Amino acid sequence: MFKVNENYLKLPGSYLFSNIAKKVAAFTEANPELKDRIIRLGIGDVTQPLAPAIIKALHAAVDEMGQAETFHGYAPDLGYEFLRTVIAKNDYQGRGCDIAADEIFVSDGAKCDCSNIQEIFSEDSKIAVCDPVYPVYVDSNVMAGRAGDWNPQTEMFSNVIYMPCTRENHFSPEFPKETPDLIYLCYPNNPTGATLTKAQLQGWVDYANRVGAVILYDAAYEAYISEEDVPHTIYECDGARTCAIEFRSFSKNAGFTGVRLGFTVIPKELKSGDVSLHSLWARRHGTKYNGAPYIIQKAGEAVYSPEGKAQLREQVAYYMKNARVIYEGLKSAGYTVSGGVNAPYIWLKTPEGMNSWEFFDHLLETANVVGTPGSGFGPSGEGYFRLTAFGTYEKTVEAIERIKRM
Amino acid sequence: MFKVNENYLKLPGSYLFSNIAKKVAAFTEANPELKDRIIRLGIGDVTQPLAPAIIKALHAAVDEMGQAETFHGYAPDLGYEFLRTVIAKNDYQGRGCDIAADEIFVSDGAKCDCSNIQEIFSEDSKIAVCDPVYPVYVDSNVMAGRAGDWNPQTEMFSNVIYMPCTRENHFSPEFPKETPDLIYLCYPNNPTGATLTKAQLQGWVDYANRVGAVILYDAAYEAYISEEDVPHTIYECDGARTCAIEFRSFSKNAGFTGVRLGFTVIPKELKSGDVSLHSLWARRHGTKYNGAPYIIQKAGEAVYSPEGKAQLREQVAYYMKNARVIYEGLKSAGYTVSGGVNAPYIWLKTPEGMNSWEFFDHLLETANVVGTPGSGFGPSGEGYFRLTAFGTYEKTVEAIERIKRM
Repeated sequence: MFKVNENYLKLPGSYLFSNIAKKVAAFTEANPELKDRIIRLGIGDVTQPLAPAIIKALHAAVDEMGQAETFHGYAPDLGYEFLRTVIAKNDYQGRGCDIAADEIFVSDGAKCDCSNIQEIFSEDSKIAVCDPVYPVYVDSNVMAGRAGDWNPQTEMFSNVIYMPCTRENHFSPEFPKETPDLIYLCYPNNPTGATLTKAQLQGWVDYANRVGAVILYDAAYEAYISEEDVPHTIYECDGARTCAIEFRSFSKNAGFTGVRLGFTVIPKELKSGDVSLHSLWARRHGTKYNGAPYIIQKAGEAVYSPEGKAQLREQVAYYMKNARVIYEGLKSAGYTVSGGVNAPYIWLKTPEGMNSWEFFDHLLETANVVGTPGSGFGPSGEGYFRLTAFGTYEKTVEAIERIKRM
Repeated sequence: MFKVNENYLKLPGSYLFSNIAKKVAAFTEANPELKDRIIRLGIGDVTQPLAPAIIKALHAAVDEMGQAETFHGYAPDLGYEFLRTVIAKNDYQGRGCDIAADEIFVSDGAKCDCSNIQEIFSEDSKIAVCDPVYPVYVDSNVMAGRAGDWNPQTEMFSNVIYMPCTRENHFSPEFPKETPDLIYLCYPNNPTGATLTKAQLQGWVDYANRVGAVILYDAAYEAYISEEDVPHTIYECDGARTCAIEFRSFSKNAGFTGVRLGFTVIPKELKSGDVSLHSLWARRHGTKYNGAPYIIQKAGEAVYSPEGKAQLREQVAYYMKNARVIYEGLKSAGYTVSGGVNAPYIWLKTPEGMNSWEFFDHLLETANVVGTPGSGFGPSGEGYFRLTAFGTYEKTVEAIERIKRM
């Protein structure tokens, strides 16, 4: 008689954003007249249309697929050379980082890569995560049987090292007491919007090399960095080639949440004994993945064209204007706020006497604004709340006005 | 110190099609003057351009993505309703099969789904596969630690039940002696091109329900069925809703190998105790996947439009004309051949005294034609060879002429 993977049953409730969607659906069903009034600043989904340079590249690629001479079947396992080359050049070599095109693995998005990467590591690997944290890192390890058991009191898994990120440590975690094998770091951070300085990130790279850990570095929000001394990639740090894997996404810098494209960088020096992680990940891609669509990879190439770059700078600036509206509006309304300067996320303390989900309900009912409860990202997120800058400008302004009036 | 997933190291060599690509690359490097003469009937990649109805749908969807009012961000976890509905209607309800739209999970292809499905089952699940078999079923279980150890003598994994499919049993496996938990079946079959009758498939459904096994049914080649009494879906069989998961692909019926779209059907009755596999797979999708691109799902919808259907019938007919050329040509040249009637694959016995890889080399060197060695699909594939009907008509005719002259 077949049996299921019991680790799945250890996951508490459903995925955070599914829960939010259900809560909002229940609210609109009970209050149909408010349906069109709801402003969603919860999930990190973009609202601006694809830039003209990308639309042009997509149409051209579609036309190629309609002609036998230029039709493209299966893509190369690891991505088209044309895309891997412009990524290596623009995101790494242009910043003085030693990353080659063949160390880049093109995929359909950072969420898949972040959740699948744990597969190439030993089942008894000990993971460390920031707390609060993007739920995918922990949940994918729970499913793989690596997280131990869920403790509903502490809201933690027994075998995961949680590194609290709070106002007290400026949302920058300390090195854990227990030595981890895998360290998930995301900077600019989701959900707190915090960043690490180059010196701080160098500290993590040195730590990982010292203890023999791998840093799984999620740099999905890199395009939102506005300040000096904030590293754009972990490979700006010396020694990162022997301890770090980096995940990148086109979702937020180019509005590809519904287009699906990302990539993972694994330097060839990253090894356990003789075994390179690059070769294991290549094997996984070859066996369990069939490449990102040709037309989408052509859209990705257009992100790096001069027109694409100029148009996307404007798009990022548009969202960062929203971030300022949220940050300054909430501050003037008396909230304690952080993030929003190098990241599209604003992280606020919930008002006295209200926990994260209570504030969620309050905001939904009173202002008809949807945000994300901080506690959904981990126990240290309790008492915090995340708003995103990905709405339209008009709705963002309206949402903040309503919050001010609350 | 971090450690790798040692199960990956149990995989012998690299993925079959990567090996073939390397062999062909080595040959063309040694014989650059023959580069343009090589005809590839190895990998199952299509060559005909996308049908006009699909190109039209892609352009329209791209335009939508360029306007704020019609832009689409994150897709629903399990696929857009518009696509799930036409799939349910056309592929299932229209054939009298009781499958609802919300039992369909849209994905970026059957390869990912076939390889990921094992995750929702217990680690000690015993798998049974046909031999020869599409390598992904076994390899994904090796990576998950479920296959035991590789025996280079037998070319089998110690903990996998291999069900030989040979000329003697008409490439239709017998029920295994040892009871499996998961049974991978692919019909029309890759690589042999064989089919099961409805009565034979009903036998497997009854067997699975009797022993408490789940059938993982890969129906990627359904569109190539030309004969009566060959089931188009496993849900034509009574009782399949309690024992079968079905995988479908748009790669071969609509030429989407480079477009990437597929789906998996999990009926809600399929349960282990109280736990439905539908809910586990939904959880996996929600946590580790971010949906197929909107524009690709719109292309999938066009596959089911009247124009799309008519154009794709022609496309399938084009490839099946190739299949006849290969089948009849090889037969007239004295080869023992099967498949090619309800499937785009032709399976031939290698000539006396030549094993599969020797015939591969012989064919490449003498006729400059690339095929796939049967032994690459499992030990019972030794002495066989696969050719695909996915080339152009002109090149297929030319390849068969060259083989006849060998």
